[in-house]
Amino acid sequence: MGDALRAAPSSAAFGAALVGEGLLVPMGVPGLYGRDERLEGIITGVDRLVLRAGAADGAEPLRFPPTIPRSVLERSDYLRSFPHLAGTVHGFAGGEPEHAALLDRLERGGRWWEGLPATEVVLTPAACYPVYPAISGTLPREGRLIDVCSDVFRHEPSDDPSRLQSFRMHEQVRAGTPEQCLAHRDRWVERGLALLQALDLPGEVQAANDPFFGRAGRMLASSQRERQLKLELMVPLGGVPTACASFNYHQDHFGSAFGIRTMRGVAHTACIGFGLERMALALLWRHGLKVERWPRPVRELIGA
Amino acid sequence: MGDALRAAPSSAAFGAALVGEGLLVPMGVPGLYGRDERLEGIITGVDRLVLRAGAADGAEPLRFPPTIPRSVLERSDYLRSFPHLAGTVHGFAGGEPEHAALLDRLERGGRWWEGLPATEVVLTPAACYPVYPAISGTLPREGRLIDVCSDVFRHEPSDDPSRLQSFRMHEQVRAGTPEQCLAHRDRWVERGLALLQALDLPGEVQAANDPFFGRAGRMLASSQRERQLKLELMVPLGGVPTACASFNYHQDHFGSAFGIRTMRGVAHTACIGFGLERMALALLWRHGLKVERWPRPVRELIGA
Repeated sequence: MGDALRAAPSSAAFGAALVGEGLLVPMGVPGLYGRDERLEGIITGVDRLVLRAGAADGAEPLRFPPTIPRSVLERSDYLRSFPHLAGTVHGFAGGEPEHAALLDRLERGGRWWEGLPATEVVLTPAACYPVYPAISGTLPREGRLIDVCSDVFRHEPSDDPSRLQSFRMHEQVRAGTPEQCLAHRDRWVERGLALLQALDLPGEVQAANDPFFGRAGRMLASSQRERQLKLELMVPLGGVPTACASFNYHQDHFGSAFGIRTMRGVAHTACIGFGLERMALALLWRHGLKVERWPRPVRELIGA
Repeated sequence: MGDALRAAPSSAAFGAALVGEGLLVPMGVPGLYGRDERLEGIITGVDRLVLRAGAADGAEPLRFPPTIPRSVLERSDYLRSFPHLAGTVHGFAGGEPEHAALLDRLERGGRWWEGLPATEVVLTPAACYPVYPAISGTLPREGRLIDVCSDVFRHEPSDDPSRLQSFRMHEQVRAGTPEQCLAHRDRWVERGLALLQALDLPGEVQAANDPFFGRAGRMLASSQRERQLKLELMVPLGGVPTACASFNYHQDHFGSAFGIRTMRGVAHTACIGFGLERMALALLWRHGLKVERWPRPVRELIGA
């Protein structure tokens, strides 16, 4: 990293440096970027580390698209907790007269999209959402452990390069008894800290809360934090500690919503997730924008 | 592949076999599926073959998210040609009263999404779309060659496993003079046929057209086909020849829309794209659902 950036460590200066260096390609909307081969190489390296650790636990990899059925959002309570972050997908369903009217609105610079009905799909809000309906029913005694990674969407336009509207999340989703879920979460908290050490990244684990909407949301957030249901791996990025991974114990929330059961009753679930772009940006922030000058052990681990 | 499937070679039977074998995981909406580790391995193998061939030409890899700015769709004429396939992304922008009203509609089973304004993003309709604004301006003498791969969306719900709403497309996008574009396309037509041979897949290249909307669209389609602006690599899949790759010469369409120029005037563009899921399904259809029984040279090439 240049001395100028060290002297003025802000996310804006860091974002500008990433764009100037060609690692991020602005797309013209806040929070949407293309990534060049070097940045993609770092992201792929982090992705591989999470995949391998999951494989050591016997995780089953499944890959889902960046869209899920609208019904999954409806059943999961997402709209109660995070309406401001959701993205619904709408499509044209008319004939030629409606098409002519749409083009007419477009040409006048009007809201051509008004009245487009919602399709049956929405954008995936977190990589784990398609897992819960897929494992509905009674689990085997040992529970299930699924490795997922997908593009996810959060409608929160921002110029901060660490707050993207579309980013990749690699998760390990556990379903089973409360003990199985807590053991999974605790194992990954240890692993997350060990991974930071191996990557020569400073950081720590903290109790956290999801960005629940509104006044009722503030109470949910404070209860989640008190009960330590959400922990985050905070790593400096652009001058401020930034959540690069989270460790979440949902209790029976998804088990109830999607009919997931153990022999004893409603299954519990837990998921741990790494934000791949954030991990990559934290590495660039720590070790500099020239990957070839990174410490050799870090480069080897990332495969860059 | 089982004898039953050989005896009744239909896309429905093939889809059922893929689901039965666990390669595809239905998500509850037509055209959305999860993929297991085996299918993902085949997809990744095809992806790597396209990437390597592009690298041999000196292609620059860029990776974009599955969403692009709405303005890119507006400027590209996509809404004139393919309104029925587009997906706009809408989001909640209200306060607590509007949220309460939304939840009320949701609980009554009503259209809770009505009135949600469009966001600034839409789903990526083809992997090449974010490239054109990114290379706006005057090209170097040798033009540009960009390698992109992303999830793309087409709003065409179907039970045919080869017609997905969300799928991955790997493209090589050329921008420059007409000669540079046609040479790129012709090189990839040869490569596509050689790739089929190496993978022991039957198939051929045919003139084709995009699925333009409406009556005016039928004329555009027939003109495109006559002028051989679109060629497709047709491979049997589920008993019918299916387009697994396409080779497209856009003339000055995107150059005009996005201000891409050569020293001589408006730049021309061409893109070739492989549908990764379709290539993988064509391999499974041809060589059977048990990858370990595939011919050794094919397995080695795919890395499965």
